[in-house]
Amino acid sequence: MARNRRPKSRRTDHDDSVVVIGLGRFGRALALELVDEDTEVLGIDENAELVQQLSGSLTHVVRADSTKEDVLRQLAVHEFNRAVVAIGTDLEASILTASLLVSFGIQDVWAKAISEAHGRILTQLGVHHVVYPEHDMGQRVAHLVRGRMLDYIEFEDDFAMAKTNPPADVIGKRLGDSAIRTRYGLTVVAIKRPGEGFTYATADTVVQADDTIIVAGRTRQTERFSELQ
Amino acid sequence: MARNRRPKSRRTDHDDSVVVIGLGRFGRALALELVDEDTEVLGIDENAELVQQLSGSLTHVVRADSTKEDVLRQLAVHEFNRAVVAIGTDLEASILTASLLVSFGIQDVWAKAISEAHGRILTQLGVHHVVYPEHDMGQRVAHLVRGRMLDYIEFEDDFAMAKTNPPADVIGKRLGDSAIRTRYGLTVVAIKRPGEGFTYATADTVVQADDTIIVAGRTRQTERFSELQ
Amino acid sequence: MARNRRPKSRRTDHDDSVVVIGLGRFGRALALELVDEDTEVLGIDENAELVQQLSGSLTHVVRADSTKEDVLRQLAVHEFNRAVVAIGTDLEASILTASLLVSFGIQDVWAKAISEAHGRILTQLGVHHVVYPEHDMGQRVAHLVRGRMLDYIEFEDDFAMAKTNPPADVIGKRLGDSAIRTRYGLTVVAIKRPGEGFTYATADTVVQADDTIIVAGRTRQTERFSELQ
Amino acid sequence: MARNRRPKSRRTDHDDSVVVIGLGRFGRALALELVDEDTEVLGIDENAELVQQLSGSLTHVVRADSTKEDVLRQLAVHEFNRAVVAIGTDLEASILTASLLVSFGIQDVWAKAISEAHGRILTQLGVHHVVYPEHDMGQRVAHLVRGRMLDYIEFEDDFAMAKTNPPADVIGKRLGDSAIRTRYGLTVVAIKRPGEGFTYATADTVVQADDTIIVAGRTRQTERFSELQ
Amino acid sequence: MARNRRPKSRRTDHDDSVVVIGLGRFGRALALELVDEDTEVLGIDENAELVQQLSGSLTHVVRADSTKEDVLRQLAVHEFNRAVVAIGTDLEASILTASLLVSFGIQDVWAKAISEAHGRILTQLGVHHVVYPEHDMGQRVAHLVRGRMLDYIEFEDDFAMAKTNPPADVIGKRLGDSAIRTRYGLTVVAIKRPGEGFTYATADTVVQADDTIIVAGRTRQTERFSELQ
Amino acid sequence: MARNRRPKSRRTDHDDSVVVIGLGRFGRALALELVDEDTEVLGIDENAELVQQLSGSLTHVVRADSTKEDVLRQLAVHEFNRAVVAIGTDLEASILTASLLVSFGIQDVWAKAISEAHGRILTQLGVHHVVYPEHDMGQRVAHLVRGRMLDYIEFEDDFAMAKTNPPADVIGKRLGDSAIRTRYGLTVVAIKRPGEGFTYATADTVVQADDTIIVAGRTRQTERFSELQ
Amino acid sequence: MARNRRPKSRRTDHDDSVVVIGLGRFGRALALELVDEDTEVLGIDENAELVQQLSGSLTHVVRADSTKEDVLRQLAVHEFNRAVVAIGTDLEASILTASLLVSFGIQDVWAKAISEAHGRILTQLGVHHVVYPEHDMGQRVAHLVRGRMLDYIEFEDDFAMAKTNPPADVIGKRLGDSAIRTRYGLTVVAIKRPGEGFTYATADTVVQADDTIIVAGRTRQTERFSELQ
Amino acid sequence: MARNRRPKSRRTDHDDSVVVIGLGRFGRALALELVDEDTEVLGIDENAELVQQLSGSLTHVVRADSTKEDVLRQLAVHEFNRAVVAIGTDLEASILTASLLVSFGIQDVWAKAISEAHGRILTQLGVHHVVYPEHDMGQRVAHLVRGRMLDYIEFEDDFAMAKTNPPADVIGKRLGDSAIRTRYGLTVVAIKRPGEGFTYATADTVVQADDTIIVAGRTRQTERFSELQ
Repeated sequence: MARNRRPKSRRTDHDDSVVVIGLGRFGRALALELVDEDTEVLGIDENAELVQQLSGSLTHVVRADSTKEDVLRQLAVHEFNRAVVAIGTDLEASILTASLLVSFGIQDVWAKAISEAHGRILTQLGVHHVVYPEHDMGQRVAHLVRGRMLDYIEFEDDFAMAKTNPPADVIGKRLGDSAIRTRYGLTVVAIKRPGEGFTYATADTVVQADDTIIVAGRTRQTERFSELQ
Repeated sequence: MARNRRPKSRRTDHDDSVVVIGLGRFGRALALELVDEDTEVLGIDENAELVQQLSGSLTHVVRADSTKEDVLRQLAVHEFNRAVVAIGTDLEASILTASLLVSFGIQDVWAKAISEAHGRILTQLGVHHVVYPEHDMGQRVAHLVRGRMLDYIEFEDDFAMAKTNPPADVIGKRLGDSAIRTRYGLTVVAIKRPGEGFTYATADTVVQADDTIIVAGRTRQTERFSELQ
Repeated sequence: MARNRRPKSRRTDHDDSVVVIGLGRFGRALALELVDEDTEVLGIDENAELVQQLSGSLTHVVRADSTKEDVLRQLAVHEFNRAVVAIGTDLEASILTASLLVSFGIQDVWAKAISEAHGRILTQLGVHHVVYPEHDMGQRVAHLVRGRMLDYIEFEDDFAMAKTNPPADVIGKRLGDSAIRTRYGLTVVAIKRPGEGFTYATADTVVQADDTIIVAGRTRQTERFSELQ
Repeated sequence: MARNRRPKSRRTDHDDSVVVIGLGRFGRALALELVDEDTEVLGIDENAELVQQLSGSLTHVVRADSTKEDVLRQLAVHEFNRAVVAIGTDLEASILTASLLVSFGIQDVWAKAISEAHGRILTQLGVHHVVYPEHDMGQRVAHLVRGRMLDYIEFEDDFAMAKTNPPADVIGKRLGDSAIRTRYGLTVVAIKRPGEGFTYATADTVVQADDTIIVAGRTRQTERFSELQ
Repeated sequence: MARNRRPKSRRTDHDDSVVVIGLGRFGRALALELVDEDTEVLGIDENAELVQQLSGSLTHVVRADSTKEDVLRQLAVHEFNRAVVAIGTDLEASILTASLLVSFGIQDVWAKAISEAHGRILTQLGVHHVVYPEHDMGQRVAHLVRGRMLDYIEFEDDFAMAKTNPPADVIGKRLGDSAIRTRYGLTVVAIKRPGEGFTYATADTVVQADDTIIVAGRTRQTERFSELQ
Repeated sequence: MARNRRPKSRRTDHDDSVVVIGLGRFGRALALELVDEDTEVLGIDENAELVQQLSGSLTHVVRADSTKEDVLRQLAVHEFNRAVVAIGTDLEASILTASLLVSFGIQDVWAKAISEAHGRILTQLGVHHVVYPEHDMGQRVAHLVRGRMLDYIEFEDDFAMAKTNPPADVIGKRLGDSAIRTRYGLTVVAIKRPGEGFTYATADTVVQADDTIIVAGRTRQTERFSELQ
Repeated sequence: MARNRRPKSRRTDHDDSVVVIGLGRFGRALALELVDEDTEVLGIDENAELVQQLSGSLTHVVRADSTKEDVLRQLAVHEFNRAVVAIGTDLEASILTASLLVSFGIQDVWAKAISEAHGRILTQLGVHHVVYPEHDMGQRVAHLVRGRMLDYIEFEDDFAMAKTNPPADVIGKRLGDSAIRTRYGLTVVAIKRPGEGFTYATADTVVQADDTIIVAGRTRQTERFSELQ
Repeated sequence: MARNRRPKSRRTDHDDSVVVIGLGRFGRALALELVDEDTEVLGIDENAELVQQLSGSLTHVVRADSTKEDVLRQLAVHEFNRAVVAIGTDLEASILTASLLVSFGIQDVWAKAISEAHGRILTQLGVHHVVYPEHDMGQRVAHLVRGRMLDYIEFEDDFAMAKTNPPADVIGKRLGDSAIRTRYGLTVVAIKRPGEGFTYATADTVVQADDTIIVAGRTRQTERFSELQ
């Protein structure tokens, strides 16, 4: 891997390269999304096959054992400002790697946790951001399974957005006249005609039967609204 | 497990009980979220420990091998309208179970896929909704790792929402005067004062330096906006 | 493997090359029988030893992982009209491979099933012909174990053929005079003198004590007839 | 298992009970087919699940280790006239069991072989009939994959029967006038109208376009005939 | 295990009970030594055999999985002031357990590390005292292997004590006259006659040829002195 | 490995090279400590990674199977005067190696035991010194866990040394006036000012509050003394 | 196991009970042969099946772990005068057990060795008699494979006995006249008529063509003599 | 391996080369003993280490898989007159190999059996000589463990030879006068003075106290005689 060593002085706030350790489904999707937005990514995994698959897609990708300090130093991992520990199922490797990244003093260390205990340990070690993909997606999908929503996200406790089909009593009316906020406690944020993209909803927008809309509001109210259809 | 067999005729659109097969991190979070919203859940897993942990939390929870047709029938799984195959890592068990649920003619079968190939097979079998938690969360977290956002969701190709801190030139102004839509191509959907919940933003809302806001708009534009801070 | 890629337009009804994936006992016998009748065969297996054993016998034989789409495409498997998934005991590999062949739109996909559940999944995936060697041979051998038959085949429910020795009261008579059809509900199809091959039986054929005959008729009647000897 | 011990003197040619050892796919299909025809079957397998599944279907079914002489004697296996070793993949168990059955002097011992070497050993031990399900079905299916046949069986070298659709120039004619024997070297044995069973073909039978027929003749000629359609 | 729950208010400096988790060679020796000195010990291990062996020797000994929070709370582990993680070779179990003890806010948590990386992680988690038995004993035994010492301990960098036989030119003299401090830079701390225990050495002590002495001083000087004999 | 074979006649008392077999945590620490004091060390381990890590640090280090006589002879192990069997957890390898070293007639054979039974076998084989690192460190740490000591060593039954902070009634006094020997039955051996090394204590030494002292005396008395602080 | 504890004083030379540890093929044959000659035997093995098989045949037979001292003491093994370690393939168990028997001070300890290294260790531990069944039988059978002998044993270097058929020039003569000792350097020890047992040969014995004889003499001479036939 | 193929016509009775398959303890001892007596040996084993160890000691030694017919034919195994299957513990490999040797028509096939069932199978396959080393040595050692004998062999049922020390009442007498045959039913076959080899005993031989003698006779009588000392 021909990576130029960056002198420590080059570390600035604008330096947004990211090192992603673990290139399973989570790490790979994360790394590819970063590259799509012109972020430089150094990908590291022990699995030769995963490394080869991504060799043309990431800025750098290396097969290496991330639990060894000398290995990470040789790859200049300690000079990065952002690092993600996306190691899938090997608790021990995740902890050993996160421990090293923290000991390097990296500014932003993210790590994927596979259980509450794992998350607590990562936090105790000093990891800055811990994410729980399986748990979070489980919660999010629950709303889709149960209700009539097409998509759903809860930004904070009790404030959610839902993509849904409009209920009958809203169809054909100007949003300004439909009293959605009064009656349902919700705001229509965006609207999508079949075959087009989403645009912002305004008071003059008239909702059609085959439109898709995004509404924002309290969790339970978005649920109820999407059940009206 | 003392579940009363529901006669076939009781199957209506209002019957929203859900059977969740596989109670790992994804399935458990999903099942608990459903119960939180008063949906009846039958949870099934082969692991006795997982079953015991959830025994007080789900409507019904049973230790059983979901790859066997007679086992599922004995649990009346074929009478449900909604089923989720949340089996974690055992590709074969996931496929055998999904195949049975489809053959039962269940109305809405959801399944978690762990790879593209797995997803293709589930679709070929006739599963109605396939979800990829690791992949989707990887993409979502990429935006948090890279940018300055606090949270992020892409509802459709090129239409996203971001939770972020407001940039300097927006602070202290009425939203109606800040020209965010003209200058950044975004709408401010909601705003949150420290210590309070989110509320809908209006033209008269004045953004403070320590507020958190949610903006909606094209993917790239939400990225750029959150980097202004 | 030096296989010329055939342009898609060359696909015609006369193109009878077959790709056989899995070269265990079933796949090998199938592939060799095809070659014996001048059909071109591309054999694929992951096992180097099996591939080497057949390297002189099949048209092409390659060691490859058939569960990977790019691997199959590189071998031009998607251009074949006929494919057989003869994978022995690895349920997952069988399903992954069959899923790919179906997604390629191959005209005739055959697959060996090792259980009822496996067979149902293959059918749900869209496989055109599912065969159960162990099960079918078990049924066929049952008739040989039980009765006096030398060979047996059931072409359809309740229509079978049996190779057997003739019963005493048939020996020395013209078939036309032996009233086999009236008395046993059977037709003698063919007859074999010791040291010769089978020939068609006619009304003038006289059966000898050491002949072997093939009779056709209802399952139970062939059983009974062969027990007369 | 409450099996009455039969005194040795009861052993006669009419005693057609069969012991089937190994209740995998082959053994189970064989055993069930025997029971269907009113043959008493003692099924033996080491796998408790398989034994339980068949407990209502076979005359007797026992979980036991068939490689132990005292176990087999306790089950009176040495008093049977017919025995089938249907042990699936465990070469050693198959050989140990077959060796015991031969040492008991059982009149007809059948065994399933999984390779040529296995077959040679079974023969050297003194097993009377060795069958190769995977190999035989592979050969048979080859004819279906390649040709246009619906089913196929080779009774002896170069004498086969094929179930097929009739070629165009045969349709609408009396068989006696169609000169199939002269032109194709074949005899039409049976014919089946849609929705009916097979019946014997006679010279007066007129073949319709949607009939299915069974022809008998030399292997290659049945192949060619079925390709005419 | 019938342990009375101590109310939180009973926690004082005199409360010196110790919980020892992991009862392998290290943990067992530690626990037994504590009991020998009248310290109450709760021993925990997953291995039933180890637990049984110690059931009569420790105050309380329980078979339990120490990586589970609810298990530890049920045993009142969170109410102890002192805890030792003596888990032998299972890195993951050691980290999970230590993480819980730290999260309980226990005042003094000791843990055995099996490698440098393990030690760093334990420290990052917040463990108060990390010990390396294999490493420390290796260093200590090195001095015995190399030199003539009978025992050796280094209390701090470059200050050690050695048990050794006296060199010839010290024998028969008063320590006050032997100029050991001037000539060797050492002090004789204690002396032992054959068959007796150690006593403090004074200026009047006369060393005999078969005495054993303990000297204190710089590491290298204790080495050299013990090589004089 | 380019080791010059030493002729047997070169074996003298001054020849202090040591062969260390097994380079785990114990063996490595031991070997490095020996090298630090200018002792030549031949290190042997089967693990290539361990061997490579130490290749620059030990005099010689070889990857070899120490359970084979010819391997050890080729490495001239039989010509050493001192050998340490530091094999970690493989009882069989430890015994096979120790047996060979004893059969070579090596003068001083040390071996690490992992259990009492292992220790008894090593002694029966004729090993000269058996050490129990886990057990000994467990006992030593017990005193630190329980008491207020900073370090502790028991040189013989009932004669120990402890590193500790001085109790209040000793501070500010000349040792000669503090009556420690009379009141506590102990001798203060050495004293350490913050930031300095240890020096011998004399009657004129005045102890300060932040000093660290080493006391010698009976086990129980050192315990009690360190609890006074 | 109801064995009466024998007081230590009952230990005399006439006490010939034997404890046999390990009841594999070697141990079982040994134990049964002892019982055949009215020697009391206590058999010990960890394998429940082996123990059950021998439960009616040996004086006492127990399932127990012979590597544990307390287990052996509970069985009063330390009170036996003779013990055989017949443990088959588990080197570690063999050594642990032999070590205990030696430490008990048992008068005659026999052990089976499976390799030279194993034999050396057993001897170093203090085992009195080490036997190598595989090795010894290999040597003995070599003479049968190569020559014409029917059986062969070498009692000491270069003194063997062979069972063989008599060569032509000996047949029909009195042994006294056949000059076998002069011509072949051998003595005929015994002779066996077909259907009878062996009897001692005398000078008057006349050898017949179908007799079997046993000759004694130097190894090579017995070889040559048996090749004469 | 450079072995010259011997033309089939060279096969004569004098051709005494032996192929030994399996070079474990039994096979190695057997092969080396044959070589010691100038018999050519081809040794075959799958284990590279065993093959290398014997490469200088046997005539030919090859690493090969003896369960494959083509492998054995390439090594010309089918041209040998004598073959030994000395495969240690792998029942399946032993049977597959023996089956091939028998099918080659080799004149004398020997095989080592590890159990009664194994022995029965080898015999059913057509192996000419089956040996049971563990069993036979177990029986032989039983006599040494129990009695006072130094060695023992039973040539046939109830005719044994024992090496023993002479009883008191025989010492100092001419054998002709000692009435051993009358009183004990035994013959003294040979006698050995300390430091010498065995010689034949005659009527004039006088037995000394420190002689070793070999006696022949009925099993029980040799036992009793050796207990007289």
